[in-house]
Amino acid sequence: MEVDLNADLGEGCGNDEALLELVSSANIACGWHAGGPSIMRQSVRWAIEKGVAIGAHPSFNDPEHFGRAEIDLPPSDVYSGMLYQLGALAAIVHAEGGKVAHVKPHGALYNMAARDITLANAIVAAVRNFDPSLAVFGLANSRLIEAARRAGLLAIEEVFADRGYLSDGSLVPRKLPGALLEDEDTVLERTLAMIRDKRVRSVDGQWVMLNTQTICLHGDGPHALEFARRIRARLANEGIRVHAARHVAMVAGCAPDA
Amino acid sequence: MEVDLNADLGEGCGNDEALLELVSSANIACGWHAGGPSIMRQSVRWAIEKGVAIGAHPSFNDPEHFGRAEIDLPPSDVYSGMLYQLGALAAIVHAEGGKVAHVKPHGALYNMAARDITLANAIVAAVRNFDPSLAVFGLANSRLIEAARRAGLLAIEEVFADRGYLSDGSLVPRKLPGALLEDEDTVLERTLAMIRDKRVRSVDGQWVMLNTQTICLHGDGPHALEFARRIRARLANEGIRVHAARHVAMVAGCAPDA
Amino acid sequence: MEVDLNADLGEGCGNDEALLELVSSANIACGWHAGGPSIMRQSVRWAIEKGVAIGAHPSFNDPEHFGRAEIDLPPSDVYSGMLYQLGALAAIVHAEGGKVAHVKPHGALYNMAARDITLANAIVAAVRNFDPSLAVFGLANSRLIEAARRAGLLAIEEVFADRGYLSDGSLVPRKLPGALLEDEDTVLERTLAMIRDKRVRSVDGQWVMLNTQTICLHGDGPHALEFARRIRARLANEGIRVHAARHVAMVAGCAPDA
Amino acid sequence: MEVDLNADLGEGCGNDEALLELVSSANIACGWHAGGPSIMRQSVRWAIEKGVAIGAHPSFNDPEHFGRAEIDLPPSDVYSGMLYQLGALAAIVHAEGGKVAHVKPHGALYNMAARDITLANAIVAAVRNFDPSLAVFGLANSRLIEAARRAGLLAIEEVFADRGYLSDGSLVPRKLPGALLEDEDTVLERTLAMIRDKRVRSVDGQWVMLNTQTICLHGDGPHALEFARRIRARLANEGIRVHAARHVAMVAGCAPDA
Repeated sequence: MEVDLNADLGEGCGNDEALLELVSSANIACGWHAGGPSIMRQSVRWAIEKGVAIGAHPSFNDPEHFGRAEIDLPPSDVYSGMLYQLGALAAIVHAEGGKVAHVKPHGALYNMAARDITLANAIVAAVRNFDPSLAVFGLANSRLIEAARRAGLLAIEEVFADRGYLSDGSLVPRKLPGALLEDEDTVLERTLAMIRDKRVRSVDGQWVMLNTQTICLHGDGPHALEFARRIRARLANEGIRVHAARHVAMVAGCAPDA
Repeated sequence: MEVDLNADLGEGCGNDEALLELVSSANIACGWHAGGPSIMRQSVRWAIEKGVAIGAHPSFNDPEHFGRAEIDLPPSDVYSGMLYQLGALAAIVHAEGGKVAHVKPHGALYNMAARDITLANAIVAAVRNFDPSLAVFGLANSRLIEAARRAGLLAIEEVFADRGYLSDGSLVPRKLPGALLEDEDTVLERTLAMIRDKRVRSVDGQWVMLNTQTICLHGDGPHALEFARRIRARLANEGIRVHAARHVAMVAGCAPDA
Repeated sequence: MEVDLNADLGEGCGNDEALLELVSSANIACGWHAGGPSIMRQSVRWAIEKGVAIGAHPSFNDPEHFGRAEIDLPPSDVYSGMLYQLGALAAIVHAEGGKVAHVKPHGALYNMAARDITLANAIVAAVRNFDPSLAVFGLANSRLIEAARRAGLLAIEEVFADRGYLSDGSLVPRKLPGALLEDEDTVLERTLAMIRDKRVRSVDGQWVMLNTQTICLHGDGPHALEFARRIRARLANEGIRVHAARHVAMVAGCAPDA
Repeated sequence: MEVDLNADLGEGCGNDEALLELVSSANIACGWHAGGPSIMRQSVRWAIEKGVAIGAHPSFNDPEHFGRAEIDLPPSDVYSGMLYQLGALAAIVHAEGGKVAHVKPHGALYNMAARDITLANAIVAAVRNFDPSLAVFGLANSRLIEAARRAGLLAIEEVFADRGYLSDGSLVPRKLPGALLEDEDTVLERTLAMIRDKRVRSVDGQWVMLNTQTICLHGDGPHALEFARRIRARLANEGIRVHAARHVAMVAGCAPDA
């Protein structure tokens, strides 16, 4: 049994180096919600040193709201902005001797692409036109996953062990009760169940089926790192191996090149 | 006799399409002093349609001052920022089916790289690590030209027919008298002389030798476009052909691949 | 019969000085969709010299899309951002010896506040807490006008002679046919009718009543300035006087201090 | 014996609330190197609740480098940018029921104003034209202090207990050895000596006289908060009272209104 652990890096939070000991995939901010070229380069170097798969973490161009505000843009603007950020990160990665492996939209772009097929298609078109060998990370069961598969890209389904789910498979919005699970033991057990049973109980008691391929580890907050270590240790105890997403998908027989 | 004509595009000024009828090289702003992904994509499309060579026009990240303020940065920051902008533009160009041909730093970055060899080397290192087949446009006789040549890149020397020169070959700073030549007839004759005689008289009466390979046409201001047409027509009358910089350099025998 | 003519300035378009000869109210960009402190100061100086009423023209913090993209923000963020921009402009105006007279939201913020009462209230709360003597410019019949009135502020109703109207009084969205009237003679007659008859025919043939207090003159585009002069001349011929909005409202008996 | 303790807040570091228990003056970032309107408002609220004097912490408009890069701007641009930021913060402070008490330039702007009298004068002119009752915090013995005094403003001299000094009273540049003192016990003793003896030993063994009025407490880094508490406790033990800068200056007889 295998799973990918991913974390968002290059956001200037100071935990990058420590997080890279714990994850198999690193999503590097591309300067539009946080970070910038020099921070990107530092994070990329560390990721290469530690053999962690590097992904682009593009967003809306909105540092003021850390890319978390929903912006209503023509799909062609999102397409152009994706190319811009993918190219910017890839240039830095190549100069450091690495290779970009995947793309995970950030914040509001991720959430909107989960439910809006037009936006999802714009994102996927940019990835495919940039480099069709890149994997696309999206919320499990989302329109982004659907769009990536239809375009022939490797789609990697992501789950959030500390977030409440609605019965349609979407996340409980952050403003609503049940959005966030705070108890660490609960989150830990939920993580294991999501990997092993491929399902999660929604806030209204329904089972939501999940093709859990990658799990997001948070890097900010006072206890994030410690809890990430706890998850990692528990996975080891349970015999669940941590590998980069492409490997996880190949083992499961769903990577195009499997 | 041949020369390259270049102009700065993608800066949101509205003259891009008309300018592209007149130049052989287009320097596309990379979003740091002006423009942005969608404007870049539009300018790139037009350039491809019209067969104009596409260049990156990277700058300091300073839209407030249009990239014209000198910023004192560690060379490694300039290096990272160059990679970021080169990658961003190249991704858009490739998706549109084109290829980046050259790099011309903008504004304060151009001026500082003309006199500061450390900065010039940082810029050149980024270009070479990104794609060593790119040409570097710099002020004729400048440190940037020197750095590019030493690194084995194709260096293209640029002259400004409407700017005053000091006897050391640098431009008269904009705050000083003699910085700008306003009379269009003078500028026109000077353009021709710079191409044919490869030299210009400095403000204190000395001859400055110039290896004139490319000339910057301005696209802003009320009469810019009209004057650009006048220059273009005059070159045709004089039998001076307008070609992209690489071709000009090859004819002159100084391109590495000539 | 009186009307206010307003224009958006400080956006770096180069027509500011000429436009200030034609309008009675100037809306100065506050650096979030265009401009910046030095451009603001220059526009403010010219407005003071020419005796034109100065207004703030705040927006979403989105220079990339010129403040035209709709951004979904908590009302408290809009409130804080309004205070920020109002304070920034007012400091510059005061240092130049002037006084801010009104506030007109820009672009997407203007459009969203026309239909969303929560957003309108957030904007109005910021204006009132900053300076309750400021007038608020909003689309005639809009929620922003309603919110400003309810809060006891002077609300000034704005009309657009070159835009199509729906029967509910809102503007035809720019993507739809009928959004923009291109024929200058039509626009000119429409302008006069909007002032005299206080109504306009919607795209589906209904009369929309308008309390026309101020009209927006565009400053960009090749013929904008010329057409603005034509409107101004026609108003003079028809005996319609051009005055700043507060005066227009007082004459009509609807300013709080009338 | 009295001293002011100040800290930089509103930079999104998460320690704001805790730091406000320890300092008597809070310098709030104005959105140009970090933060933004909503973060500013939160920090302002906390400062008001805890009775801490509020200051503006303006900078160059350079979030990418956190305001730490030196930018060569015309003094009139710095003047306009100062007004912009002062006005923006003051609007938020007033809406929350508080009052701005002082101004402390940030990062590169602070360092450049310490040695460049033209820049210092531009900053001081903006403060005076905005509100002549504001105090200006500057490096002890610097040109900024000199400029503020000459303009009739209350100038408050700041010292850094963890930084090396050159014999001319300037700080050892961060790139050079001796720039930063790491040993906490040394820094603590130095803090006390700077307050009591009004002098510090430079890196080359000379005494530098210091009119220590305010001391900067750092809020970032893992141990910053803990060390700030230690300083605060030690001051209490030594009978040195902590008061806002204006009070400290009045007791010492150097505030204009003393």
